[in-house]
Parts: sequence; C-alpha cells; structure tokens
Amino acid sequence: MTYCLGMLLDSGLTIIADTRTNAGVDDISTYRKLHCLVDAPDRCIYAASAGNLSTTQTVLGLLREGVPVPGGAAEGEEPLLRTIAEPTSMFRAAQLVGEAMQFANETVGKALASVKISGASSMLLGGRIGDAPPSLFLVYPSGNFIECKPDVPFFQIGEHKYGRPILDRTITRETSLPEAMKIAFLSFDASIRSNLAVARPLDLMVMPSAPGAPVLVRRIEEGDAYFNDLSMRWGDMLHDAMTTIPDPPFMAGMNGKH
Amino acid sequence: MTYCLGMLLDSGLTIIADTRTNAGVDDISTYRKLHCLVDAPDRCIYAASAGNLSTTQTVLGLLREGVPVPGGAAEGEEPLLRTIAEPTSMFRAAQLVGEAMQFANETVGKALASVKISGASSMLLGGRIGDAPPSLFLVYPSGNFIECKPDVPFFQIGEHKYGRPILDRTITRETSLPEAMKIAFLSFDASIRSNLAVARPLDLMVMPSAPGAPVLVRRIEEGDAYFNDLSMRWGDMLHDAMTTIPDPPFMAGMNGKH
Repeated sequence: MTYCLGMLLDSGLTIIADTRTNAGVDDISTYRKLHCLVDAPDRCIYAASAGNLSTTQTVLGLLREGVPVPGGAAEGEEPLLRTIAEPTSMFRAAQLVGEAMQFANETVGKALASVKISGASSMLLGGRIGDAPPSLFLVYPSGNFIECKPDVPFFQIGEHKYGRPILDRTITRETSLPEAMKIAFLSFDASIRSNLAVARPLDLMVMPSAPGAPVLVRRIEEGDAYFNDLSMRWGDMLHDAMTTIPDPPFMAGMNGKH
Repeated sequence: MTYCLGMLLDSGLTIIADTRTNAGVDDISTYRKLHCLVDAPDRCIYAASAGNLSTTQTVLGLLREGVPVPGGAAEGEEPLLRTIAEPTSMFRAAQLVGEAMQFANETVGKALASVKISGASSMLLGGRIGDAPPSLFLVYPSGNFIECKPDVPFFQIGEHKYGRPILDRTITRETSLPEAMKIAFLSFDASIRSNLAVARPLDLMVMPSAPGAPVLVRRIEEGDAYFNDLSMRWGDMLHDAMTTIPDPPFMAGMNGKH
C-alpha cells in the first residue's frame, strides 16, 4: 500500500508521500514515491504515486524521455514524443501524465492483467508553470484526472481512510503551510499506526504561493525528532481529552471496575 | 455500509452499531443493526451485523426459530433444530451463529451470487451465559469466528478504517466503561463525518462485568445533545492542539500568506 497527501492552500502547495512498498506482507521495501518531474526556471512539477510500482516507473520514464503522441505518426514513421518539459500549463501537464498512464496501461497493464495482477496506479501531480499559481491534480489509473478546488483543498491516494478524519475536521484553504504540515503529520501518524503498509521515511515538498519563493524538499526519517515529539504530544492530548470531555450521563455509576 | 464496534474490557462489554443501510447512494434507509438475541435469567446475548440485510435477517430468524443441525436428520425425517436459547457457553453460541451463517450462505447467498450480488454478512456476538464473564466474538461471512482477547480488546465490522486510529491510540483492557463509550463516540463521529454510509441514530448496549449488574440499552438519536457536545468539544481540542504543537522547525518563515 501507500499513502500520499496533497494540499492546495491559499498559502501554497504541499505533497507528502510515505515510502513503503510491499508485495504481500513478506516482501516489504522502501521506495521514494514523491518525484521531481522537472525543476527549471519556467516550471517546477512534482508527482506522488500509489499503486503498481512498475506502472509508476514506466509513467515517470515516459514523462522524462517522451510520451508517444496518440495517433501522431504515420505508418513507418518515428512516433512523435512529448516530455514533461513541454506543456504550457498544468492542465496540459495533467493531460500528458494521463496519456502516459494510458500508454502504460496498454503495455504493462495488459501484460499484468493476463496473470491477474493489477497494474493500476494513480498519481498526485502538483506544481506551477510560468507565472501561474500552484495547482494540484489527481490522475486516476485510466488516465482521466480532476483538479483540486478550494471546497475540499486536498487529495489523498493509496490508503486514505485512516488519515482522513483529521483532514475533514481541520483543513481549509486558509490553513497556513506550517499548520497544514502538522495536520498532515498527524494524518500520516494515524495511517502508520493502523496499517503496516504505510511507513516512514516520509518525503515532502512545499511550494509557497508567493512568486519566486523557493521550494522546500525534505525527508522525514524513521527517527525524526520533530515527528516523534508531535506524535507523543498528540497522544497526551488524546488522553487529556478523555479527562476533559464529561462522561456520558446515561453511564453514571458505571465507573467502578468489577 | 455500516459501522459496528464491540469492546471487551475488564469492566465489561459494550457493542455499538449505526443504523444506516443503503443500496447505492439513492436508496438510503434506517435499520436497527444491534439485536438482542436472548435475554433470559441464564443468558443475555446481543449481536450487531454488517453486510447484506437479507442474509442478516435470515440468520436472526434461524437463531430465533431454529438452525438445522448439520447432518442431523435421516432422509424423510424432520430436521433437528437448535435455537440461541440452548447453547451452554458463548463458544457454543458462536458456533451456532456460524452454522446459521453457513445455512444462509447456502440459500440466500447462492441465490444472490447468481445475480452477482454479494450476500456476505458478518456479526459481532457478545454476551454471557450462566456465571461466565462476558465474551465477544466476530463471526465472519463464511461462519468461522474469532474471540476477542485482551491484547486488542475490540472488534470492528463494516466501515472500520475512519474510526480505527483513535481506538489504536487509547483503548486498553483497563479502560473504564464511560471512557470507552466516549472513545467509541469519537470513533463513530469520525466515521460519520467521512462516510455518508454511516449515520446516527446509534444503538448501544453495555454489560458490566459485575455479576448481576443490569444491561444498559440505549439509542443515540440524530440530535442527541451529549453526542453533539462531545463532537464540538473534540473539534475545539483539535484546533487547540494545532496551536499547542510547535510548528515544524524546517518551515520557519513560511507562516505568511501570499
């Protein structure tokens, strides 16, 4: 499994991904799932992936070395290829990722389907091109995609349920980047505790909305002191909450042990 | 969907179930999923169900009116029947529920499978027989079952992931019944907020371990004041936590909006 979270706030974009991959529970490994697709003066684009690792790597390779333009070459001619360095907007970039996903489905995906293995993979695609503000897309396994909008300013892929309630409770487009990162870490902490298939290290990128602000990229290691402290403080707060919230009135007198 | 939670603590047993049933999102209804199977001087047994409603109702009907004993009648004779009033232990009761589940699978389940609808249903079975302390079982769709033990003193069925992290963080066998109920309500609150297919009213039962203590049965309605207050307090605490937990040191200077 995997857990990736992208948040598109007024203050900026952030994408966070865990690094655990597994084939069953007895074949566990660590792979980076947050990738810098391009970092150039006119564009900075990141992707985080969940699902079949070979499909993902095929998509990344195609974006780097060239996605065949659908119906772009006459018979006998070399196919036209486009890379992630070319799209003129994030919408066009999402289209290109979708086309790469479709190409991977028709090759890797079909081969895997014949042995009843799912080649499905989904991606969070975020970044900015030119002077446009950052944007965030979710590309589905079939290559179709949706864009993140302010009503629910986050996307999750992979094992999303354990870490969802805290997001539903707290994240709005006005949330600041540091606060969003704290909430994201609590969301990952919940997922990691409840599902073996999600684990540190975490990789994260933060792209402030302010034009020209540098992009932060960081890995949160297994023993990261800040993450551990946050997790411990959260545990303490949960226990305090149990003391502060009054007991159910209908259970008066049930406090004793037998 | 559905969410049911059973907890077996030193201080007693509790089972809580939501009441939402749905066939798609355009056919939503309210059904009680927490059932009293028997309440007699020598036994008190409850079950909560998730999954196909017709399978569940068949299982409940069989337990009330008689489960055919497997291989129990010669050809041409009336089948031997056993009801939930007969088992001499909760283990035997779980076996009988498992047999009823298998019978329902072979009848309702097979008919549904022919039109590609899942008849699968699972149950939490809890209660006490004679002087034994309360016990709790999870009966799977195939009729096999496991018993709740102290290391992880709870079972969930149905849509369990949203409400799981808070249980993993807080519930131990030493948790008191009122505290367990608060945690359970927060677990349901998370599930209800994140999934349309889980909703109030909630039905609950509490069976203290103390011999002879009465069983509490209660419905938490849509507008229940205590539940609403607990949910609001929890929201306030989450926001306080965001203030109390220090910002990530690597994000210093990112607090400003653009």
